[in-house]
Amino acid sequence: MDVVAEVRAAEGRIRPYVVETPLLHSPAFSEETGAEVYFKCENLQHTGSFKARGALNKVLWLDDAARERGVVTASTGNHGAGVAFALARSGIDGVVFCSPKSEASKIDAMRRLGAEIRLHGDDPVEAEVFAREYAREHGMVFISPYNDAQVVGGQGTIGVELERQLERFDAAFIAVGGGGLIGGIAGYLDAQRPDVEIVGCSAANSQVMARSVAAGEVLDLPSLPTLSDGTAGGIERDAITFGLCRDYVDRFVAVSEEDIGRSLYDFMEAQHMLIEGAAAVPLAALRLEAARYAGRRVVVVLCGANIGMTTLAGVLRRHSTA
Amino acid sequence: MDVVAEVRAAEGRIRPYVVETPLLHSPAFSEETGAEVYFKCENLQHTGSFKARGALNKVLWLDDAARERGVVTASTGNHGAGVAFALARSGIDGVVFCSPKSEASKIDAMRRLGAEIRLHGDDPVEAEVFAREYAREHGMVFISPYNDAQVVGGQGTIGVELERQLERFDAAFIAVGGGGLIGGIAGYLDAQRPDVEIVGCSAANSQVMARSVAAGEVLDLPSLPTLSDGTAGGIERDAITFGLCRDYVDRFVAVSEEDIGRSLYDFMEAQHMLIEGAAAVPLAALRLEAARYAGRRVVVVLCGANIGMTTLAGVLRRHSTA
Repeated sequence: MDVVAEVRAAEGRIRPYVVETPLLHSPAFSEETGAEVYFKCENLQHTGSFKARGALNKVLWLDDAARERGVVTASTGNHGAGVAFALARSGIDGVVFCSPKSEASKIDAMRRLGAEIRLHGDDPVEAEVFAREYAREHGMVFISPYNDAQVVGGQGTIGVELERQLERFDAAFIAVGGGGLIGGIAGYLDAQRPDVEIVGCSAANSQVMARSVAAGEVLDLPSLPTLSDGTAGGIERDAITFGLCRDYVDRFVAVSEEDIGRSLYDFMEAQHMLIEGAAAVPLAALRLEAARYAGRRVVVVLCGANIGMTTLAGVLRRHSTA
Repeated sequence: MDVVAEVRAAEGRIRPYVVETPLLHSPAFSEETGAEVYFKCENLQHTGSFKARGALNKVLWLDDAARERGVVTASTGNHGAGVAFALARSGIDGVVFCSPKSEASKIDAMRRLGAEIRLHGDDPVEAEVFAREYAREHGMVFISPYNDAQVVGGQGTIGVELERQLERFDAAFIAVGGGGLIGGIAGYLDAQRPDVEIVGCSAANSQVMARSVAAGEVLDLPSLPTLSDGTAGGIERDAITFGLCRDYVDRFVAVSEEDIGRSLYDFMEAQHMLIEGAAAVPLAALRLEAARYAGRRVVVVLCGANIGMTTLAGVLRRHSTA
């Protein structure tokens, strides 16, 4: 795919509907790491994560016939909320399939945005398989959370904002799950700011993309549970993000659960904002590699704020310094 | 004091340095309360609270001679951080007195902003008494957290933003401590939007201003501990905010600790942002009075985000619904 063209097209489509999220300089983490640290705050994006960008770009890209038939997705996470938001803003119909075991508060949030929610299957994978079948049967477009050129293009609009917000920076730390977020940003910056080092950040417990890139092909690997639930899980064999990560990510860093939790805790204490586990991953990676980035200007992309209260309570219990 | 004139002057002085904080419509709390609910997000202000506004307005108001001599304050809370921020932005010197028993993370944050910190006394009251003496001896200006026309004027710039951000609203729920925040906003809106009902919101455990207004004079009342530490404590007998609250606050609502904690928890879960106890007070008040505001458009001012991690852990433990 031509990432830059997709990102530029996305920028034209979604700009009126998304938040140009703040880029905040952090005195606390700059002092600690010796780097000049900026946070890109997608935790303050609509729906509390960057996923609103890609989903909105996808639905606005559809032609009239496809809009008429509506869209389908499966997710109770940030992607589901992003699609629900996109449908509400665009006035397009769609169905979000969720497992009945999903958190009620997340389903409520999507329903409140006006999305039609259908409960199906025993887990998220079953809900997705069913959703894809449903889309095929009804001639509706299924929206993948990452394996989609317009979704990737939408996420890449973060790169456009970074270009506007910061004249110069040396590296960007970005979480890697399916690779839509980092693929869009990295592909765009590779053309616009070729000197920026792109650091792909994963939980050590689930680093399918990093391992796949190392192997030269998409691997089918198991994942262990992780605080970074937003980046956990496997990648489709035909994922368009594989080539983007292979070509545009300069290096990968994996971080432990201990480091993710510690960074989540310290971030909340110093920055007074809520973030989810996946957003703490790139911060943990920067802290791990601080010596290498001393004196350099780095952007840490905070992908979202949607952390479950039980998970948050666990982090506070485990990492309390009191 | 001429509140409108002070607020207008503050708007001219501080605008380039403060965040015009977002005003976010809340589908979740609108659905729950039946009102049309908007959050004014001072949790996203510099330093994580509205206090940066008043402190900055005060130091920029000083004449050259006073700037030369520098300023003094006493606080490890939001006001101290606001003054530290104001000094850093203005290049003016100053000293912030803190009790040695203050939280290290809060002192660190002020020090990082470049403030000179001096530890003195056994508690915040002793630190303040000493700071005032120190200011007198050295001919320096002591900056009160609320009993100061320029501080009140600075906080009132939130009213200017609300006027810009929302064409019409029926009521504003605002926390009341010393009365600087509500005094500035209410005094300004009384002139600009006289139909807006101003609801002063206190923790039942510490409602000195509400009781004082009811009594017609500033009372010396004890306070019990409260999650809303940002609004706790007494008021000076000559407080200029007393007259403002008496004249411009339409009604007072007090909320229990249970309700404050519950609202803090529910807010974080639904809105994915961190707020401090004092910011949950006006939300708790709206929920308590929801029947009265059904169908009306209300603004809830979230005064800040600076909650201690131990306090946050306690709220999560107590109010978990899992």
